[in-house]
Order: sequence, then C-alpha cells, then structure tokens
Amino acid sequence: MAEYFAIRWVNGIVRMLDQRKLPHEVEYLDFDSPQEVAQAIRDMVIRGAPAIGAAAGFGLALAADKSLAVDREMFWAELNQVGEILKAARPTAVNLTWAVNRILKRVSALETDQVDALRRVAVREALAIAEEDIQTNRRMSEVGLKVIPASANILHHCNTGALATVGYGTALGVIRCAHESGRRVFVYVDETRPRLQGAKLTAWELQQLGIPFTVIADSASGFFMRQGKIDLCLVGCDRVAANGDTANKIGTYNLALVAHAHGVPFYVVGPTSTVDLNLPSGDLIPIENRSPDELTHIDGVRITPPGVNASNPAFDVTPARYITAIITERGIAYPPFEQSLKELCGVL
Amino acid sequence: MAEYFAIRWVNGIVRMLDQRKLPHEVEYLDFDSPQEVAQAIRDMVIRGAPAIGAAAGFGLALAADKSLAVDREMFWAELNQVGEILKAARPTAVNLTWAVNRILKRVSALETDQVDALRRVAVREALAIAEEDIQTNRRMSEVGLKVIPASANILHHCNTGALATVGYGTALGVIRCAHESGRRVFVYVDETRPRLQGAKLTAWELQQLGIPFTVIADSASGFFMRQGKIDLCLVGCDRVAANGDTANKIGTYNLALVAHAHGVPFYVVGPTSTVDLNLPSGDLIPIENRSPDELTHIDGVRITPPGVNASNPAFDVTPARYITAIITERGIAYPPFEQSLKELCGVL
Repeated sequence: MAEYFAIRWVNGIVRMLDQRKLPHEVEYLDFDSPQEVAQAIRDMVIRGAPAIGAAAGFGLALAADKSLAVDREMFWAELNQVGEILKAARPTAVNLTWAVNRILKRVSALETDQVDALRRVAVREALAIAEEDIQTNRRMSEVGLKVIPASANILHHCNTGALATVGYGTALGVIRCAHESGRRVFVYVDETRPRLQGAKLTAWELQQLGIPFTVIADSASGFFMRQGKIDLCLVGCDRVAANGDTANKIGTYNLALVAHAHGVPFYVVGPTSTVDLNLPSGDLIPIENRSPDELTHIDGVRITPPGVNASNPAFDVTPARYITAIITERGIAYPPFEQSLKELCGVL
Repeated sequence: MAEYFAIRWVNGIVRMLDQRKLPHEVEYLDFDSPQEVAQAIRDMVIRGAPAIGAAAGFGLALAADKSLAVDREMFWAELNQVGEILKAARPTAVNLTWAVNRILKRVSALETDQVDALRRVAVREALAIAEEDIQTNRRMSEVGLKVIPASANILHHCNTGALATVGYGTALGVIRCAHESGRRVFVYVDETRPRLQGAKLTAWELQQLGIPFTVIADSASGFFMRQGKIDLCLVGCDRVAANGDTANKIGTYNLALVAHAHGVPFYVVGPTSTVDLNLPSGDLIPIENRSPDELTHIDGVRITPPGVNASNPAFDVTPARYITAIITERGIAYPPFEQSLKELCGVL
C-alpha cells in the first residue's frame, strides 16, 4: 500500500497532495503563505470538510509563524485578518470557521505580550487540530462499525477518505475499518459529478486499500437499489445543522431520496466539529456555486457546445427526515437529532 | 437555424449524422450494408428509440435493395436473417423489433413471386416508417402541449430531439412545440452520464432552436426541485410495458423518484410504437449493459485509475406509479395505464 497524505506541516511550510492531478499523478505542492493556502482551498488542490478545516488551521499557523508583528495587538489584528480570508475560502463547510476560531480562541486565552509565545501557541493548536482529526476519524470509524453487517454492499458518495481528511477518513474510514476488521465489504462508488471525486479519488483510495468496488454513474443508484444490491449508504458531511439537516456534496440529497424510496439505510459520517449548533436548520447553510466550467469541461476537454450555460451548485442539503443516523467520534446520533446532536456535542 | 437530421435514405444508401462527434463536429456517415447499420446502432453513431427503429428499418431496406435473391423464398430467408441481426443490435428499445417486424409483415402480405416487387415494398415500408415518425412526433408534441403551462421550467433527461428520432423529437418535440407556440419555456438539461447526451446533444439542439436552457449535473435535480425551480419533468422512453412501467436512459428512475418526492409532475413522451403490450410489466424488459469504458473514460480521456471496475447499465425501469402520464401521438394515457395504454393502442 502506498503511503500518501492530503496535508502536512513540514518545518514551517504546508505540504498538500494536489488532488486535481489524482489519480494520474501523485504530486505534492508546498505553500508558505496563508494567501496561497486560501487559494489552494478555493482551487480544490485540497477538498473535504475535515481536510480544508486542517488546511485553514495551517494557513493561520503560517501567518503566525511568518508574522513580523512587534506586539500582541498587531499580531492579533494580523491573525484575525488572515482568519477572515481563510474562512471565506469556501462557504459551505463549517470546518474552516471552526478551525480558525479554535486557534484564535487559544491565542486570545494566552496571557502574554511575547509575540513568540503567541506564535508558538497558534502553530501548536493548528498541529493539534490536524493530529486530533486522525484520532477522531479512527474513533468515528470504530463507532460506525455498529451499523455495518458482516457482509455489506455499501453505496458511497464523493470522497471521504484519507484525502478528504488529515488521515483515515470519515465515511470511507468506516468502510476501511470494517474491511480491516474482517467484514466482507463491497463498495458501489458513485462517480460524483461534476468533479468526479468518486471515480478519481475514492476509486484510487480503495485500490490502495485493497477493498473491492465498482464505479457507477450517480444516476444509477436507484437501478442497483431496486435490484436489492445496496445494503446501506454512507456519506460524509460539510455542515450539519442543529436539527440534523446535512449539507454535503451535490447529489447527496438525490441519493438520500432514492435510498428512502427503497428503505435503504442512509448514514451520514462526520466529526462533531462539523455540527453547527448555531444553525437551527439546513435552509440557512450557505451553498457554494462553482464555475460552470466544471460541467462544460472535463479535465480541460470541452463537453458541451461553446456558449452553453451551466448551473453548478457544489453542495445540497439533505433534510434530516431522510437520514437514518449521524455517526460521530462521540457516538451515533439518531432522530430526533435536535436532542441527540446536542447530547453528543456536550451541550445537554 | 442549421438544418440537420439523424438519419435519411439517400439513393440506396443510409446516411447518419455521427452523434459521437457532436457537438464538436457535424459529420455524416454513409452505410450501404445492413451489417454496417447494425454496427452503427451498437456503436451509438445513432441513438434514441425512434431513431434506431428507423435505422433498423433502413438496414432491412438495404438488405432488400441489395439482395441477389432469385426467388421469394430466398429473399424471405435473407430478410429474416438480417432482421435478427438488426433486432439484436440493442436489446432494450422495442422499436428495432417493431420496425423489422412491420416491414417483414408487409413483405409477407404481398402475394407475388417477383423479387423486384418484394424489394420495392420493403424499401417503401422503411421509408414510410421514417416519414411517419416525423408526423407522429409532430402530433405527439401538439398533444403534449396540454401539460405545459404558459410559463414553464422543464427538467429534461437524455436527448429526445430530432437527433433521437427521424425528425422533430419526442419529449424535446413537446418543448420545441411549446416554444414555437409562444409559451415561455426554460429547460434544465441534465447532462446524462455516462454518454452525456444531455450536455452534448440536447444542449446542441436547444442552441439550434434558440430555446433558453442551463446544463446541470444529473444529481442536482433534487437541489433545483427543492428550490421550487422545476415545474415538470419530460423524458422519452425506450420501451413501455402494458402496465406503464417505462424503460428509458439510466437516471430516469432516479429522476422520477426525486420528482415524486417533490410533487413535480413526471411525464413520459413516446410514440405508441414504443408501447410493448406483450410485456405485462417493466421487470421483463431486457436491460443493456454497456462497456465500463463509458464510465472510466470521457471522450477517450481516462478518468479513473487504471484497472478499475465499473458497472454501466444503459437503461433503468421506472415503475408506473411514479409516472404522471404518458404522452403519445394518439393522446395522453393517465393511470391506470393497463386500461389507458390499451385504449390508445386500439386494443380495447
């Protein structure tokens, strides 16, 4: 099995696997400014809610590490300014804001005027966020085992593996953990238009892991469910509202509706850092629209005639009533989610 | 507006627009043997149930026209043999069998031993099938106007236009007719993976016709319906069973489920020649599996890592309960379809 990672802090630079080139080339890029990191997030060098959360953290760590601020006030202003840029890089996933705010809070709590000390605490907190993500994913994957039968055909949307996180993965982590613990899993990988994260990234990761799978068109999920070939669906999440409504990669909502029509269980997998208890419902989650080029071109090759309009929402919101359960590192939330999510997040 | 056609009989050869090269190149190919026509159908030079029905008819006409048979028996044996090849070219659409059988029946009914006379009647019948298709589509489109409000946002799947027929189109014919009769129509064109008939062919046809549209990912239909942006869905059909179950391009079933969940009317449009009263239910419709390459590659460019499996059913079956109505050239069939389809087909 090849070793690979989505993002890492290496001696004061941020190294990312350029996911736009996968599965054809494995190429790492180095970034040494927060502005570059924000651009890399926008351009989808790195993607996946937990991974871009960690990236935002490292972006802020770069700002801290390279800061020329001479006093606490200047350092704080600088960090807040860079934090705003990083938070705005992509609007839907809550993890960017979560990571930035966590570091700012930590810096704010340190009572010192020594900029060096503030610098160190910011970098340490970003490293902690990244390190905890891997641990969180391993715990979440073990929690998720409860819903995986001894033999399971699993439909998986988008990419939620090591590439979408700092390590191990969320929904794909559950699949990996089930495979490693001896369950017979087979994965229906939907290709996930327009960016084809399923066909490109999930297929690549499953190959590395030796887990059997087949790629299908997004629109073929109902065909396979109607044939009784799918036991459950596993997807990740970019933001979960307090009522359980879940924003995730475009196509998640369609898949949830199709699963619901067939009585196929539909599980969302994500860390509690993806739960946004400030939002009462999913209707309030901002949805990013991306370039029409993602539909009109594939890998730089034009598909449609020239001059064609395309509408390209990058995410959709699945209402909580179509979600069987939400699997987190702290346990599984079942409906009613208003109650169970608060309990898991330690608010109740 | 550019003039174009999917298929035409030109002085003893069959001319087809090579739809594999659209929308980038408009290139016509000429065929002078039924074996070549069968291969062109298999390779999707031409596609769409009515168009491949006409192609099968012209393939049989080529066999008749070029036949070296010296007597009726030999001619009949030859036509039947070629008919089997043409019918087997693609399994799901009933139109191939329908067209071949119609010509054979006509030949069989002609009481003569003159091979030339038999030859002429076969060619004439193939021409009649093609000619009638255009008239049928125009009638069907006018019938379909009844379900189109004065201002309508329509979600359309796959391609069902002039390219999928001998002329004018089925579901896209209804849209065209609505546009030409002054209704304000806007089309959400789903791209229709894996062959991208929406993004490539429907987008191209709508451009030629000057009808406004936007291309969306197949999996984004729920997103737009949830926003209240879709008034109705229009799709074609490859085979309709006696109970109304409808085989059509993969993704039709998912779209019907998503429309049903939002209370969005879902209309199937197709000529009565696509209704197969011999099949009591859609479960009996043979579903073609096509090459995994259609998923692993796009326009010859590899998408997935090498060595990846893909499962590629070309069609799915939408159970009748998710279909609001079936629009034919003889009127609109509403549930219960067992009754209404028989009535329209003149069996009751």
